[in-house]
Amino acid sequence: MDMTGFRDVLERVRRGEWSVDEGLRALGKLSAEDLGYARIDHHRALRKGFAEVVYCEGKTPEQAAAILERLARHGTNVLGTRAQPRVAELLKERVPDCEYDEVARAVVIRRGPRRQIGDVLVLCAGTSDLPVAREALITAELMGAKAELLVDVGVAGIHRLLSQVDRLYQARVLVVVAGMEGALVSVVAGLVDKPVIGVPTSVGYGAQLHGLTPLLGMLTSCAPGVAVVNIDNGFGAGYLAGLINAMGES
Amino acid sequence: MDMTGFRDVLERVRRGEWSVDEGLRALGKLSAEDLGYARIDHHRALRKGFAEVVYCEGKTPEQAAAILERLARHGTNVLGTRAQPRVAELLKERVPDCEYDEVARAVVIRRGPRRQIGDVLVLCAGTSDLPVAREALITAELMGAKAELLVDVGVAGIHRLLSQVDRLYQARVLVVVAGMEGALVSVVAGLVDKPVIGVPTSVGYGAQLHGLTPLLGMLTSCAPGVAVVNIDNGFGAGYLAGLINAMGES
Amino acid sequence: MDMTGFRDVLERVRRGEWSVDEGLRALGKLSAEDLGYARIDHHRALRKGFAEVVYCEGKTPEQAAAILERLARHGTNVLGTRAQPRVAELLKERVPDCEYDEVARAVVIRRGPRRQIGDVLVLCAGTSDLPVAREALITAELMGAKAELLVDVGVAGIHRLLSQVDRLYQARVLVVVAGMEGALVSVVAGLVDKPVIGVPTSVGYGAQLHGLTPLLGMLTSCAPGVAVVNIDNGFGAGYLAGLINAMGES
Amino acid sequence: MDMTGFRDVLERVRRGEWSVDEGLRALGKLSAEDLGYARIDHHRALRKGFAEVVYCEGKTPEQAAAILERLARHGTNVLGTRAQPRVAELLKERVPDCEYDEVARAVVIRRGPRRQIGDVLVLCAGTSDLPVAREALITAELMGAKAELLVDVGVAGIHRLLSQVDRLYQARVLVVVAGMEGALVSVVAGLVDKPVIGVPTSVGYGAQLHGLTPLLGMLTSCAPGVAVVNIDNGFGAGYLAGLINAMGES
Amino acid sequence: MDMTGFRDVLERVRRGEWSVDEGLRALGKLSAEDLGYARIDHHRALRKGFAEVVYCEGKTPEQAAAILERLARHGTNVLGTRAQPRVAELLKERVPDCEYDEVARAVVIRRGPRRQIGDVLVLCAGTSDLPVAREALITAELMGAKAELLVDVGVAGIHRLLSQVDRLYQARVLVVVAGMEGALVSVVAGLVDKPVIGVPTSVGYGAQLHGLTPLLGMLTSCAPGVAVVNIDNGFGAGYLAGLINAMGES
Amino acid sequence: MDMTGFRDVLERVRRGEWSVDEGLRALGKLSAEDLGYARIDHHRALRKGFAEVVYCEGKTPEQAAAILERLARHGTNVLGTRAQPRVAELLKERVPDCEYDEVARAVVIRRGPRRQIGDVLVLCAGTSDLPVAREALITAELMGAKAELLVDVGVAGIHRLLSQVDRLYQARVLVVVAGMEGALVSVVAGLVDKPVIGVPTSVGYGAQLHGLTPLLGMLTSCAPGVAVVNIDNGFGAGYLAGLINAMGES
Amino acid sequence: MDMTGFRDVLERVRRGEWSVDEGLRALGKLSAEDLGYARIDHHRALRKGFAEVVYCEGKTPEQAAAILERLARHGTNVLGTRAQPRVAELLKERVPDCEYDEVARAVVIRRGPRRQIGDVLVLCAGTSDLPVAREALITAELMGAKAELLVDVGVAGIHRLLSQVDRLYQARVLVVVAGMEGALVSVVAGLVDKPVIGVPTSVGYGAQLHGLTPLLGMLTSCAPGVAVVNIDNGFGAGYLAGLINAMGES
Amino acid sequence: MDMTGFRDVLERVRRGEWSVDEGLRALGKLSAEDLGYARIDHHRALRKGFAEVVYCEGKTPEQAAAILERLARHGTNVLGTRAQPRVAELLKERVPDCEYDEVARAVVIRRGPRRQIGDVLVLCAGTSDLPVAREALITAELMGAKAELLVDVGVAGIHRLLSQVDRLYQARVLVVVAGMEGALVSVVAGLVDKPVIGVPTSVGYGAQLHGLTPLLGMLTSCAPGVAVVNIDNGFGAGYLAGLINAMGES
Repeated sequence: MDMTGFRDVLERVRRGEWSVDEGLRALGKLSAEDLGYARIDHHRALRKGFAEVVYCEGKTPEQAAAILERLARHGTNVLGTRAQPRVAELLKERVPDCEYDEVARAVVIRRGPRRQIGDVLVLCAGTSDLPVAREALITAELMGAKAELLVDVGVAGIHRLLSQVDRLYQARVLVVVAGMEGALVSVVAGLVDKPVIGVPTSVGYGAQLHGLTPLLGMLTSCAPGVAVVNIDNGFGAGYLAGLINAMGES
Repeated sequence: MDMTGFRDVLERVRRGEWSVDEGLRALGKLSAEDLGYARIDHHRALRKGFAEVVYCEGKTPEQAAAILERLARHGTNVLGTRAQPRVAELLKERVPDCEYDEVARAVVIRRGPRRQIGDVLVLCAGTSDLPVAREALITAELMGAKAELLVDVGVAGIHRLLSQVDRLYQARVLVVVAGMEGALVSVVAGLVDKPVIGVPTSVGYGAQLHGLTPLLGMLTSCAPGVAVVNIDNGFGAGYLAGLINAMGES
Repeated sequence: MDMTGFRDVLERVRRGEWSVDEGLRALGKLSAEDLGYARIDHHRALRKGFAEVVYCEGKTPEQAAAILERLARHGTNVLGTRAQPRVAELLKERVPDCEYDEVARAVVIRRGPRRQIGDVLVLCAGTSDLPVAREALITAELMGAKAELLVDVGVAGIHRLLSQVDRLYQARVLVVVAGMEGALVSVVAGLVDKPVIGVPTSVGYGAQLHGLTPLLGMLTSCAPGVAVVNIDNGFGAGYLAGLINAMGES
Repeated sequence: MDMTGFRDVLERVRRGEWSVDEGLRALGKLSAEDLGYARIDHHRALRKGFAEVVYCEGKTPEQAAAILERLARHGTNVLGTRAQPRVAELLKERVPDCEYDEVARAVVIRRGPRRQIGDVLVLCAGTSDLPVAREALITAELMGAKAELLVDVGVAGIHRLLSQVDRLYQARVLVVVAGMEGALVSVVAGLVDKPVIGVPTSVGYGAQLHGLTPLLGMLTSCAPGVAVVNIDNGFGAGYLAGLINAMGES
Repeated sequence: MDMTGFRDVLERVRRGEWSVDEGLRALGKLSAEDLGYARIDHHRALRKGFAEVVYCEGKTPEQAAAILERLARHGTNVLGTRAQPRVAELLKERVPDCEYDEVARAVVIRRGPRRQIGDVLVLCAGTSDLPVAREALITAELMGAKAELLVDVGVAGIHRLLSQVDRLYQARVLVVVAGMEGALVSVVAGLVDKPVIGVPTSVGYGAQLHGLTPLLGMLTSCAPGVAVVNIDNGFGAGYLAGLINAMGES
Repeated sequence: MDMTGFRDVLERVRRGEWSVDEGLRALGKLSAEDLGYARIDHHRALRKGFAEVVYCEGKTPEQAAAILERLARHGTNVLGTRAQPRVAELLKERVPDCEYDEVARAVVIRRGPRRQIGDVLVLCAGTSDLPVAREALITAELMGAKAELLVDVGVAGIHRLLSQVDRLYQARVLVVVAGMEGALVSVVAGLVDKPVIGVPTSVGYGAQLHGLTPLLGMLTSCAPGVAVVNIDNGFGAGYLAGLINAMGES
Repeated sequence: MDMTGFRDVLERVRRGEWSVDEGLRALGKLSAEDLGYARIDHHRALRKGFAEVVYCEGKTPEQAAAILERLARHGTNVLGTRAQPRVAELLKERVPDCEYDEVARAVVIRRGPRRQIGDVLVLCAGTSDLPVAREALITAELMGAKAELLVDVGVAGIHRLLSQVDRLYQARVLVVVAGMEGALVSVVAGLVDKPVIGVPTSVGYGAQLHGLTPLLGMLTSCAPGVAVVNIDNGFGAGYLAGLINAMGES
Repeated sequence: MDMTGFRDVLERVRRGEWSVDEGLRALGKLSAEDLGYARIDHHRALRKGFAEVVYCEGKTPEQAAAILERLARHGTNVLGTRAQPRVAELLKERVPDCEYDEVARAVVIRRGPRRQIGDVLVLCAGTSDLPVAREALITAELMGAKAELLVDVGVAGIHRLLSQVDRLYQARVLVVVAGMEGALVSVVAGLVDKPVIGVPTSVGYGAQLHGLTPLLGMLTSCAPGVAVVNIDNGFGAGYLAGLINAMGES
């Protein structure tokens, strides 16, 4: 709670400037307002080192670029997800050092220091899942994690995954991005003893039901230690992986 | 087509017993009827060596036992699926050499010779899927296949499956029975180059949706060479595996 | 398992070049790596005579054409599925003998010998299902099968199907491609005693649910001997049919 | 419309007993009330020869029997659907000539003359669908139709259906009761040129989805001339078949 | 059954040109082929007065126009459903007397006599459902029915429907086309004692689920005498209504 | 906000008993606690005249009765929903004046005054929907509403509903309880200009989908002025109707 | 009921111009017709102060503008929902004082007096839900309500909502517009004792299922006093809120 | 990898007891077997302090008790989930110090030391969700976590949750168990910056869809930092929470 306002009231009452009733009224007003600001401050304190995030889909490139630029002025990292190339073009004119990842469709403006703690490992089977996987990767990195992406480790060619078993053992948190039936999550979670975050993707057709099939499959995985985020939600997985990864540092 | 009836008409016409018009009327009648019998004969010829099948669910034990006994009199193998123990008890009184598999809930009356050709391999992850897996096994065996069941080869402990890779390579057809998310199908189909029949089971809860989740997952498997039968349909998988297995003999 | 690496370790240990501990470390490293390569070799050996496959949807024509061309250099057959005409145009410039099937939207580069063993019969009711049916046909052919396509044999005019009954009996494997309610699968599987692969298509509207209705219908078919692949998955059906068909040759 | 009340008003106005305003008030009151009775009368006139219907499920046997008995006193036919045997037992004590169909779970009290016009043909594949099929049969009969039930004409053994083609051609309306995938509807509707009413049943398991699969399949049937009623709704199909059948008499 | 071929065989056998065995072989061949033609002839006989139908969606305007023109040469009525205006433009160049209904998106070429028997009444609530309603109307008309369309009789303003009650009573068959929740079907079926065919439309949004909501609602209607066709299937409803309407003539 | 605690802090600070820092700590503690109590008080004030509610399903009769008894001691009205008869039996022993509605499965202990303001009208089609309808009725009554239940006003016999139009016009709020397809809501909302609360029930079978069908139908109703609560949620509808009804009094 | 016509009949009968039978026939005809007009008048009387509404989606801009203009001539308020900017452009040429809200995509022509009674509060979490929220706001205003929109009060930052608690308490009716999982409805309904109307929106992706997820969530809300309208149905919510709000005035 | 076997082979080869070829054969055999044991050992090392788990549902009490007893002999902790009271009774006879949690239906046999590191906080709204919440609690405790359960903090009375905000801030990982619409997850995740694991429960009825509604809602939560496990899967949530919690210790 922001104690400045409250202290001010108490001091005025103590000094006799305000009656107890006047103090009560002021407290009532503060109580509601400060609760809000308290929360914001609290958040800011905890999220130190992370970025403001803007979901660009459904905004015009002009709107998205304007919001991203304004946030960047506060000196924090800024992440724009699901941004068309045009957003980056517009932003570059005003924020020349912004970065754009075409595959992830993500814009990044780095203003804070780049930390690389822990070890977040993002896995996916192939190129179709890359946009979601890279969004997870970039998000985890912005949260201060050392993060790496392993591609081409699908279940249909299990040997490629198994030849990376040692790499899997090293990771602190694993993000498994998988379309089709999403079986990769079960296999990975059966191999490691670390938290596994499953991200179903909408890659597939017919009975894949736009990602519902791997979503349901991951939720009923026969391997323990798995939790799941929304279809194609690379950002959510990367954010949660970043949170968990950071715990290993305390 | 049963040519006896047709020949009779032609001969009567040739002998002048019937006019052409009388012959035409007779042919019209035969044409429809014989088509039916032709088909039945044809079936019987092809299904040689296999059994008559009775789905016992929804019948009283008395009804089921009576039907099974009657079929056994024709000297063919008889298979009763989803049969309660009471069906077997009643049947034993009249057909003492009938066999009952408690796990598969299957009654078998063997009347034909026991062949053991080819190699059908049925896999499942654990004891919960056993009823369905054993139903597939027994069905394939009745169709003349050498059939074997590998249990405890789930995806969450992939090493147990991999330690059996050589066994997988030997099989002519594989039936993969899997509940939960059904990921075992994708891993197995990625390892072998033989037909894989996926059987989703209703084992699981919540988002498993009574078997819909592994059903959808198997259909969208990232590995080729897979086809799927209905939830808990061990009989269907064993029958199809038996058909395919028999082809390797010709 | 690729024993060359393992033998080398054993020989070095035997010759005293390496201590037992050095040998152990080398084995540990080999164990993981070789497992992978073993699988790849194995696959290559078994899949002999078949093609590399590229799913072109979701790739730019330029990307698709480049991948297809690169694969063709290895001297194997190459199949590109769901390829727009532009892919074929681009590919023709560099691989003049590539073939394009407009209906199936499939590109084929033939580098291996053309075999025509067995008998795969693909059936569909009408022109709307043709793209999927032809994809199945081309895939089965590339796997070395003699394959034929019967069109216009829908359930609503059952006489057209029945007039082909003899043709159905000859087939070793049948692929039934059906949209709408998919009833053709049940009728065909009731007529033959050979494996039937059902391919539901998304042809239809409203309660057809983009193919879910025939998918569910085929899975609950009252006729045995049927298994099902994903909606519109002509490739998967053709591949599996090719596998089964090849078994009749051994 | 029940003109008695209205006539009375007009006559009082004509005779000068009531002023026009008094007449208007009386008409306003009558208008609402009579509308109701008018409808009932109208219905009664049209439904001549048919029965009052009671859906017994969810009622205690005592309640169901009491309602059925009370209706029978009006001298019309009475039909109780989904009635347990206990309902019939109780009813027999008071209405000794009531009939109970165990398979259809239907109680019938005949009070009107038994007509047998037209030709309603009810088809089903096997014993599992019999309860629904017989409910349709009994309902159509009560509506005055000559009605017949053809059992064992499923799609998996199409020859049995085809050997009855002449019988199908004779029917005025066809009711096709089918569980599993419901393909029988498409085949029958492809053979005849008469109205076909599809009744999906909940017979099946897994992907049959308690009847949703044949329901959706029948709705997307590739054959024209079909309309569908709710799952297991034998009464609805029989009632509609009775209505259509009766039209052929006018 | 096409008796010409069969008669020819019998006559050759009678004349001694062919032996009985030669006759048998010829009959076997004819039996399969003729079955097909028999069915077609049979259909043609029954469908007298109706049209050939082409579903134009998914065909190019050029393809659709060419098929329609070819059929028109046979001298039967021709109906093209879901046809874009361009189809009609192209067709007009070659078949100047073809008619195009923009709302129903239907092309009609009349070659048979125009009959107007019975009374098919098509109802819908508003302009959004008109395309489907008019498709039903045109189809029923082509089948020889006197058919009429009542618009603006939705449930939300029940008085407009009730003011047409007498019109409803006159109809022989009623087609109720309704989007949103489809409640109109229940109200209409409660008012009349004639067959009611429900056609759910995809008009609506959100929980309307592209027509699934009125489809399910119509199937569970509390009023008897209703059967349902697929979402937006005006043709199917009109065809079935035409069949039923024609029965009143016999 | 409960100002007593805050005032105490301010007075202690003013009197110099506490330092400003001590005051701040006390305020921090109060702030959280009081927020809670404030809300509770606020609720109590507003809900004056209404009852505590206990959802008895999933509790043993003993547990349910004990909770109900304890609440009754506070002198407020108490409502127990979905209570088996045994709950009432047990409760009667200790709270002899409790009332039990068998149809609604509701227990009521009245401790506050019985008000009967406004006019809540609950409608349902038949006896099957009565449990839900009476639950709504009792709840609205406990909230101080004059409430009435109209039964037997289904859509299939629209005249019975129309003969009650004047009664509908008088109501301040209408609760429409409907199973099957739920069409009654649309008709009622088309007749009145008052808020209509739709309550879908699970009465029906097959495509009724345990109440999902009327739920979806009510949500897509073509008549404005409707909002919907959960399936079988008579309590929720009665509570909301009570809230709205009470507004007409201010 | 329109008594003019009825009076005329009675007077003619009284004067002896018509016999009683002639009167009866005339009454029968009037009865149906007048019922309709009666309802329309009744509606008009009750909806006083509100607008005619046109749903513009699915109409061409020209059609929509023409309908809106014609309605405006009657001197009532007119509301066009889901109108593209082009509709407003066209309308402005003929009705220069029409207003267009780009966010809500709503056209308003004010002809009646602007009342501002009661207090309808519309809440939403963010800019994505604004189109639906503003549609609700504008509709409620047109119905004579004082209406206000609170934006940026989502559940993920609960302090912003809590800092507005006093504002929430003042409202007479609350409309909560929420996409994603729709949790805002439960929190708001837990805070207030006034009717809460939930409007799920289609904002979100993947498991949000185009709005089905918040729709289902709102329906199962753990807080009482909530009812729900269709996905994205801002108009429906605003209309119902206006009805309820107006009740507080009587 | 278990190097004992491998070392033995190398030493035999080095000593000349085995030829290189004999060594190769031995390695081949070991490679497969040891891979398995390696994994098991690896797991055992990591899972130190945790228990063997038995899912008792679907097993007879006798079977479940026997398996639990046998595992307990290995000296590790043992957890039996979804165990009926009878399982505990039987087990008590042989393992007198086993504990049974009636609410969670969990049997625990403690053999390892009880550690209490970190801080796992489990929240749920009410008594209905307790079985799932306590299962999560017990699981996390067995994994060595200090774990606490906060009950009665539902969204409908948000003040109770807010009064616990400080407690929420202290937790390292939060498990939120919620039935109905599951909104609690979004509110909690909006308040804290720690990983939140959502566990939807099947508590509710109608549109709650046996837990699918809160499952979908949690997946689309507007608050970041959330991942979800299967419906009613308290064990899965507790296990994952235990894994994450343990990371804070390293």
